[in-house]
Amino acid sequence: MTDLSAAWSRLEAAAKGAEGRSIAGLFEAEPDRVPSMSFEAAGLHIDLSKQPWSAADRALAVELARAAGVEGARDRLFAGEEVNASEHRAVLHPALRAPAGSRFAALGAPVSGAVEETRAAIRAFAEAVRSGTRRGATGERFTAVLHIGIGGSDLGPRLVWEALRPLVPDLDLRFAANVDPAELALALQGLDPASTLVVVVSKTFTTLETLSNAEAARAWLRAGLGDAGDSHLVAVSAAPDVAQAFGVPAAQVFAFWDWVGGRYSLWSAVGLSCAVALGPDAFEALLAGAAAMDAHFVSAPLETNAPVQLALGHVFNRNGLGRPIRAVVPYAQRLRLFPPFLQQLEMESNGKRVDAHGRPVARPTAASVFGDAGTNGQHAFFQLLHQGTDVIPVDIVAVRRAGEGDPRAQTKLLANAVAQAEALMVGRPEAEVRAELEAKGLAPAEIEELAPQRAFPGDRPSSFILIDALTPEALGALIALYEHKTFVEGVLWGINSFDQWGVELGKTLAGRILEDLGGGEARLHDPSTAALIERLKR
Amino acid sequence: MTDLSAAWSRLEAAAKGAEGRSIAGLFEAEPDRVPSMSFEAAGLHIDLSKQPWSAADRALAVELARAAGVEGARDRLFAGEEVNASEHRAVLHPALRAPAGSRFAALGAPVSGAVEETRAAIRAFAEAVRSGTRRGATGERFTAVLHIGIGGSDLGPRLVWEALRPLVPDLDLRFAANVDPAELALALQGLDPASTLVVVVSKTFTTLETLSNAEAARAWLRAGLGDAGDSHLVAVSAAPDVAQAFGVPAAQVFAFWDWVGGRYSLWSAVGLSCAVALGPDAFEALLAGAAAMDAHFVSAPLETNAPVQLALGHVFNRNGLGRPIRAVVPYAQRLRLFPPFLQQLEMESNGKRVDAHGRPVARPTAASVFGDAGTNGQHAFFQLLHQGTDVIPVDIVAVRRAGEGDPRAQTKLLANAVAQAEALMVGRPEAEVRAELEAKGLAPAEIEELAPQRAFPGDRPSSFILIDALTPEALGALIALYEHKTFVEGVLWGINSFDQWGVELGKTLAGRILEDLGGGEARLHDPSTAALIERLKR
Repeated sequence: MTDLSAAWSRLEAAAKGAEGRSIAGLFEAEPDRVPSMSFEAAGLHIDLSKQPWSAADRALAVELARAAGVEGARDRLFAGEEVNASEHRAVLHPALRAPAGSRFAALGAPVSGAVEETRAAIRAFAEAVRSGTRRGATGERFTAVLHIGIGGSDLGPRLVWEALRPLVPDLDLRFAANVDPAELALALQGLDPASTLVVVVSKTFTTLETLSNAEAARAWLRAGLGDAGDSHLVAVSAAPDVAQAFGVPAAQVFAFWDWVGGRYSLWSAVGLSCAVALGPDAFEALLAGAAAMDAHFVSAPLETNAPVQLALGHVFNRNGLGRPIRAVVPYAQRLRLFPPFLQQLEMESNGKRVDAHGRPVARPTAASVFGDAGTNGQHAFFQLLHQGTDVIPVDIVAVRRAGEGDPRAQTKLLANAVAQAEALMVGRPEAEVRAELEAKGLAPAEIEELAPQRAFPGDRPSSFILIDALTPEALGALIALYEHKTFVEGVLWGINSFDQWGVELGKTLAGRILEDLGGGEARLHDPSTAALIERLKR
Repeated sequence: MTDLSAAWSRLEAAAKGAEGRSIAGLFEAEPDRVPSMSFEAAGLHIDLSKQPWSAADRALAVELARAAGVEGARDRLFAGEEVNASEHRAVLHPALRAPAGSRFAALGAPVSGAVEETRAAIRAFAEAVRSGTRRGATGERFTAVLHIGIGGSDLGPRLVWEALRPLVPDLDLRFAANVDPAELALALQGLDPASTLVVVVSKTFTTLETLSNAEAARAWLRAGLGDAGDSHLVAVSAAPDVAQAFGVPAAQVFAFWDWVGGRYSLWSAVGLSCAVALGPDAFEALLAGAAAMDAHFVSAPLETNAPVQLALGHVFNRNGLGRPIRAVVPYAQRLRLFPPFLQQLEMESNGKRVDAHGRPVARPTAASVFGDAGTNGQHAFFQLLHQGTDVIPVDIVAVRRAGEGDPRAQTKLLANAVAQAEALMVGRPEAEVRAELEAKGLAPAEIEELAPQRAFPGDRPSSFILIDALTPEALGALIALYEHKTFVEGVLWGINSFDQWGVELGKTLAGRILEDLGGGEARLHDPSTAALIERLKR
C-alpha cells in the first residue's frame, strides 16, 4: 500500500466513525474547535467548524493532502510546469494577476513580460473608451459593450459584472453566449451600433456559439454603420490571425495564451469588457485580490491554508461520507451567479473518471454543485436541505457590510445566513415539536402524525465564508479561493483538472446531426435519435 | 408484504438487472421501443426510450403506480379532498385553469365560481392598465410593473415572463424577491413612480422578504407621489385585511385561496403581473395549455400517461439505480429559468423524510435538480455528465420552431440538443479513440495515457421533451406536466407534496438572531454561531 492509499484508508475509516455522530456534540469535546477550524485568507473569514469532521479527522485529512503531494503540485503549477499533461500545457492563471515585476514562466518560457504588456494594453484601451478618446465610427462615444463568449469566457465576466456593476453604469455591459439567437436578440435590445463596442472572446476563434453570435453582431454593426462597423469589433483570442480574418482590426486583438484555461481566464484579456465597463482600477483591484489569495495559498502551511482546508472538508463529505452533491448559497443577490460559476469551475475541472495517467480513478471525483442566492433559495430548495433524505453540505457566503439600499434589510439578510447554518446543524428534536403541539391542544393522533413531519434531523454540515464588503479585491480573493480549492481536490483525486475532453463528443455528433437536419439521407443513429431527427425535419 | 412493498421490491430487483446493461442494446431487443416509450400530451412530444429501463421494467413501474394508488390519489386531488393533510387543505391548482363552467370544490365547498370571478377581474384589470383606462395618480399611463414576491410567488411569474416576453414590451415587468436590498435597488432602476404599478404577492402578507421589499417600494412610491403613491399598490393575498391595512386600495386586492400552494400558484392571481405585462389573452392561453395537460393526466391510462411515465422513469433512476441527482437542460434561452423553477417545485414538494403519517420513508425521496440552458450548459457542467464518476440522468427540453433571430442558429441549437442525448447514451469506446490517436501517429505510451481520458462510457440516460413552438399554451402544458409528475412521485413515496415544514426552523432562528444582532446579550447558540454573531456585531 502506498503512503497515499494508506492515507485515504485512514481518512475513510475515520469518516465511518463520523456517520451518525452529532456535529454540535463536537464543540463540547473540542473547546477550541471554532478558532482552530476558522481561517483568515486575503481578507476572507472562513469557518469550517460546522463540518462533520473532528479535530482528529481533520488531522488525517491534512496527512492525506501531504501524502498526495499537494504542496509539490502547487509549486509545480506556480513554476509553470506541464501541469495539464494531456494537452502538454502549463497552467498559469496566477501569472495573470501577479504583482508587476513577477517572473512567471510557462514550460520554461517567460510570460510575465507579455502579461504586463497586455495588462497595460487593457488599461489603455479601457481608459481610452471611458474617456471618449476612443470613439465609434461616427464619432459617438461608446455607451455599451456587448460581450460574446461562452463557458469560462462568459461566466467569469458575467459574475464580475453582476457583483460589481454600479446601479447606473457609465457604460452598459451585455452578454450573449447561447447559440440560441434569442439571447443575442435580447442583449442587443435598445443598443445603437454607433455607440456599441462588440468584444468577441474565443481562444481558437472557432467556437460554434461564439462565432454564430459574432457573425450576427457583425451583421448588426454593418447594417448600422456599413463597412466601418468592423471597427467596433474587438477580439480576445489566442488565434489573432483568425480574428483579423474575421474583420477585427489588428490593433484590437488582445492576446490570450494556451496556458490560460477557459474557466480560469477572467483574469486575462477575457476580462477586458469588465475593465472597460467597470474601469481599469476596479479590474486591477480584482486581480490584486486574487493575487493576495495566491500569496496565501503558496505560503500558508497546509493546516491553515484556506483553499486546502476547504478542499479537505469537501473531500471528507464527498469521499468519506459518500455525499455527491453540494449546495452553494451566497447571501448576496449580487453574487447570484457565483453558484453557476462554481458549477463550471468544479464540474468541468474535476468531473473526470480516469486519472492523469489514464487509469480509472479509485473513488468518486467532483460532486454536483447547485445553488442560488439566499434568502431566495430558502423559499425554493432549502426544504430538501433540511428535511430531505440526502445530506447535502452547504457553502454559505455572506457579506458583512451593506451595499445599496436599506441597511436594516441587510441585517435581516445576515440573520438568515447565520440562522440557516445553525438550523441545518442543530435541527429540532421531535420531542420539542411534540411538546409544542400538545401545548396547542392538538389531539394525540394528530400529534403522532404531525410531530415527525415538523421535526428536523440536524447534522447537516455547512461552511461559512464571510466577506467584509463586496469590493473587487474581495471578489477576486473569493474566486481564487475556489480555483485553488478545485485544484487541490484534483490533486487529491489524481486527475488533470485543466482539460475537458468530455466536451468533444457532443460537438462531433452535433456537427453530424446538423448535416442530417440540412437534408439528405440521415446517417446511422440509434432509433430514438433517428426518430427525433425525422421529426425535426418535418 | 403489502401489494405496494411487493411492487417496490419487484421494481428494485429489476433495476439491479439494469445496472451495467447497455441502453443502446435495448433498441435491438425491443424493436418498437421508440413508439412504445414516446408520448403525446397536450401538444408535447416526450421520448423516454433513452431511459435505462427495458419494456419489462417499465411494465413493473406501471404496476408500482397502480399498487401505490396513483389513479385514486389523482382523483382525490381533482375532487378537492384533503390531499394536504398536515395543513387540512385541498390542493386545487387545476381548478384555477379549468375551462369556464367547471365545478371544482375544495373540501366540499364550491370554488369555480370564485375562480371565474377572479379570472374576470384579472382580465378587466389587465385590460384597463394596458388600454390606459386605468392610470397612475398623476394621470400617466403605466409603463412598468414591479412584482414583489418570493419562492413560488416569484419563480413562476419570472419563468413565464422570460419565456414569453416580447423583445420590446408595451409594459416592462421587473421582479424583486430577495430581502437583500440590492435586488430591489436594481429592479427600480430607471423606473418612475408615476408610471409604475407595484404588485405585492404574499398569501399571509407577512412574509419577511416580501414585506421588506413592499415597504421599500411603498416608500419609493410615496417619495415620488405623496400619499397618492399607495394607489399604485396592488396585492395578491389570502389576507385581504392585512393588505388593506398596509395601504393597498380595497379594489386592488386580488384573492388567493388556502388550497393554492405557493409553488402551484402562478395560475392564480399570482400571475396578475404576467397578465398585465403579456396581456390577458396570453395569460388565458397559458392556463388553457395547463388545462389540456390536466385533461390528459386525468384521462390517459397509466401506460400512456405522460406525467406518470415521466415520474416512473425518474423513480427508476432515483430508487432503482440510486441516482440522487437529475439535470434539466432546456435548449432554449427563454426557458433558462425552468431548471430553478423545477428545483423549487420538486425539491420543496418532495424533499421529505417522513411520510404523510409521520413514519420515516422507506426509500430516498426527491432528487436534487440543477441545470441551465443548452448550449450554455455544455460549456459548464456537461464534462461531468459525460465523464464524471456519477451517472446523472438529464431531462432535455427542445423547441422545434425558432423564435426571434437567425433560424440557422436555431437549427444548430436543435442539432446540439439531439446530439447530446445521443452522445450521453452511446458514448465513445476507448478502442475507437485509440485507433484515431494511432492514426495521428502518437507514441504508444502517450496513447496509453490519453485514450482512456478521451473515451466516453455512455449509458447515461436522458428524457427528451419536444415542444413545437414556445407559445403560452405549450409553456402551460410543460409546467403542468412537471407539476403532475411531482405529485405522482409524492404518491409513490407516500409523502405529502404540498406542505413545507422544513422552511419553519430557519425562520424562527433568523428571528432570534436578528434580535441578537440588534444588541443586548446574545442567546445561547453553539460556539460557531455565537462567534459569527459576535463578528457581525463588531
